[in-house]
Amino acid sequence: MTRDSTMKTMLVAARANADAFADRFREELPDHRIVTEIPEDGSSIAYAVVGRLLPGLLASLPGLELVLSLNAGVEHLIASGEVPAGVPIVRMVDPGLVDGMVEWVAAQVLAWHRNLFTYREKQQRTAWEPAGEKLAHERTVTVLGAGALGGPVATMLATLGFNVRGWSRTPRDLPGIATFAGTNALVKAVTGADVLVSLLPATAGTTDLIDRALLDRLARGAFVVNGGRGAAIVDADLIAALDDGQLSGAALDVFRTEPLPADDPYWQRDDVLVSPHVAAPTHVATAVSVMADSVRAWERGETPAHVVDLDRGY
Amino acid sequence: MTRDSTMKTMLVAARANADAFADRFREELPDHRIVTEIPEDGSSIAYAVVGRLLPGLLASLPGLELVLSLNAGVEHLIASGEVPAGVPIVRMVDPGLVDGMVEWVAAQVLAWHRNLFTYREKQQRTAWEPAGEKLAHERTVTVLGAGALGGPVATMLATLGFNVRGWSRTPRDLPGIATFAGTNALVKAVTGADVLVSLLPATAGTTDLIDRALLDRLARGAFVVNGGRGAAIVDADLIAALDDGQLSGAALDVFRTEPLPADDPYWQRDDVLVSPHVAAPTHVATAVSVMADSVRAWERGETPAHVVDLDRGY
Ligand SMILES: NC(=O)c1ccc[n+]([C@@H]2O[C@H](COP(=O)([O-])OP(=O)(O)OC[C@H]3O[C@@H](n4cnc5c(N)ncnc54)[C@H](OP(=O)(O)O)[C@@H]3O)[C@@H](O)[C@H]2O)c1
Ligand SMILES: NC(=O)c1ccc[n+]([C@@H]2O[C@H](COP(=O)([O-])OP(=O)(O)OC[C@H]3O[C@@H](n4cnc5c(N)ncnc54)[C@H](OP(=O)(O)O)[C@@H]3O)[C@@H](O)[C@H]2O)c1
Repeated sequence: MTRDSTMKTMLVAARANADAFADRFREELPDHRIVTEIPEDGSSIAYAVVGRLLPGLLASLPGLELVLSLNAGVEHLIASGEVPAGVPIVRMVDPGLVDGMVEWVAAQVLAWHRNLFTYREKQQRTAWEPAGEKLAHERTVTVLGAGALGGPVATMLATLGFNVRGWSRTPRDLPGIATFAGTNALVKAVTGADVLVSLLPATAGTTDLIDRALLDRLARGAFVVNGGRGAAIVDADLIAALDDGQLSGAALDVFRTEPLPADDPYWQRDDVLVSPHVAAPTHVATAVSVMADSVRAWERGETPAHVVDLDRGY
Repeated sequence: MTRDSTMKTMLVAARANADAFADRFREELPDHRIVTEIPEDGSSIAYAVVGRLLPGLLASLPGLELVLSLNAGVEHLIASGEVPAGVPIVRMVDPGLVDGMVEWVAAQVLAWHRNLFTYREKQQRTAWEPAGEKLAHERTVTVLGAGALGGPVATMLATLGFNVRGWSRTPRDLPGIATFAGTNALVKAVTGADVLVSLLPATAGTTDLIDRALLDRLARGAFVVNGGRGAAIVDADLIAALDDGQLSGAALDVFRTEPLPADDPYWQRDDVLVSPHVAAPTHVATAVSVMADSVRAWERGETPAHVVDLDRGY
């Protein structure tokens, strides 16, 4: 059964670049009406493109068929309780976003691996002092969340020479990566790792997963990279592990509260690199192209790829 | 014609790790005598494994057949004038060294590309401020010196998504890389590049190559990475280009004088990352294995791989 597509209306409710998104949608879906403001009668809107939700927005769209998320992480959408039952949420899986995350994690892991911040600190003391160095094949990186982002990240780290392990909820097969699935395999996946990369979504099952017990399984002096969601880390445990040398550093792009509050201790630490949720921004061109694919699939009567499973929470 | 190999003696004159090198050579070449001190009668020494030369060392070895350099760069050996005419110098080409340089250059390029030091500076001001970001495929990197190190570096940068150009003296074919050869192609190779990586050896032809005229051909705000030799860069020109914004930064591992003198202006600059010649250290295991191959080739009557061409200077 194909679905009716005659002049369906799409609301682009992006908080940034709404006009750029809308223009691009007009090119990709010329037979659709694309608007950036809610019309008088919200019932004409079939598709809503949303980032962080304006409260009440979705409730004013009684004809809604599909929610297209501008973000890979949809915990805000689910938690809002505003997506009507039966309306699928399609999360963002976009090649530009994958490239961004691969580049960002590779940058953070290599910068730590090759001591770039250590050398900056030595430079500030005018110290010509080689630091001990290892090659990538002498180090192990574990990627928690070997999904749309974590899979390509793991593959690139292996291409760079690291020994790489990947962990997911269900079994995944990634060439050249040692993969582990499920809670029972977590300890095995992280034990002895020199670097822990989290690309986990925020769900009930991932909240507080990275705690002191897990950090203590890593190699002494390990490095933690969080590009997933802040709630996966027990911040007090991470700080304690940094303070006593179990960890040598961390690169954090995501936090429980964003923007990170000015009085958060992470800001002041030399051994933590704070970045403002910039690891993998959504790119207009590639993102619109995958969202338009979802709309076309929907109108052919298919289920679009990457529909969120509300039970598992991602 | 095979050469006599009965109990030939090798002098390991490494300034660091001489015993580790010697032990490893004893395993690799069990039918040879391996010494770390010059014996009474230096004429028994056929092979000398050397890093930076002790003045007069080679002159005391009248039976010398082969010089095995612990370094990829041999300008010190050539400039010393102490290598007897007709005695080949084999420079270091070692997979461990290649891995090290690939990792170091990738770390520097990605750290700049993903603004890691910019975010560190923002963190120090408690500033949650996204910086403009590009993906690798929106940036071009030119590698000067597409040789044993530069070739694999260029390939890895292309794998990371960058548009990559390589420049060498003679034409080189590197899959996925736009290659340029010879002085006449230099301007074309560098014009518009966002990152310039030098992995050139120190020779008459490369000295002062990276001057103001060349830097002005790069894209505005470009980044320079030098992992080759310091003499390739006109330091005053680099500093002037940083000061007026033509360059946004530089990562320098090699310098005209090493260790870098305490009063050198590079130390004080936030936009220059100084490292103490650590991009690609020689690794005992892999280095000994390639040097032993050279000895075996020599004794079979062959010319070992990677013999230095004294006329071209590398
Ligand atoms: N910092 C940024 O700029 C940025 C940008 C984009 C995305 N993100 C974050 O990155 C997250 C991942 O994105 P994605 O596109 O890769 O999502 P994805 O394709 O759904 O991958 C999530 C991965 O996590 C695994 N996982 C989920 N819950 C788990 C659990 N309880 N135990 C073990 N593994 C579990 C999944 O296992 P299965 O493979 O078995 O499903 C999957 O491998 C997003 O949710 C978002 O929060 C951050
Ligand atoms: N920082 C460190 O820790 C470190 C470690 C190891 C090495 N290095 C430096 O890296 C340098 C390169 O090592 P490598 O093993 O890659 O050497 P290589 O294999 O000899 O490569 C040198 C490259 O430079 C090119 N080249 C030389 N002179 C040129 C000229 N006048 N014009 C254009 N291209 C020129 C060569 O061209 P052709 O291909 O046509 O010959 C070749 O592509 C060494 O000499 C050493 O100084 C630094």
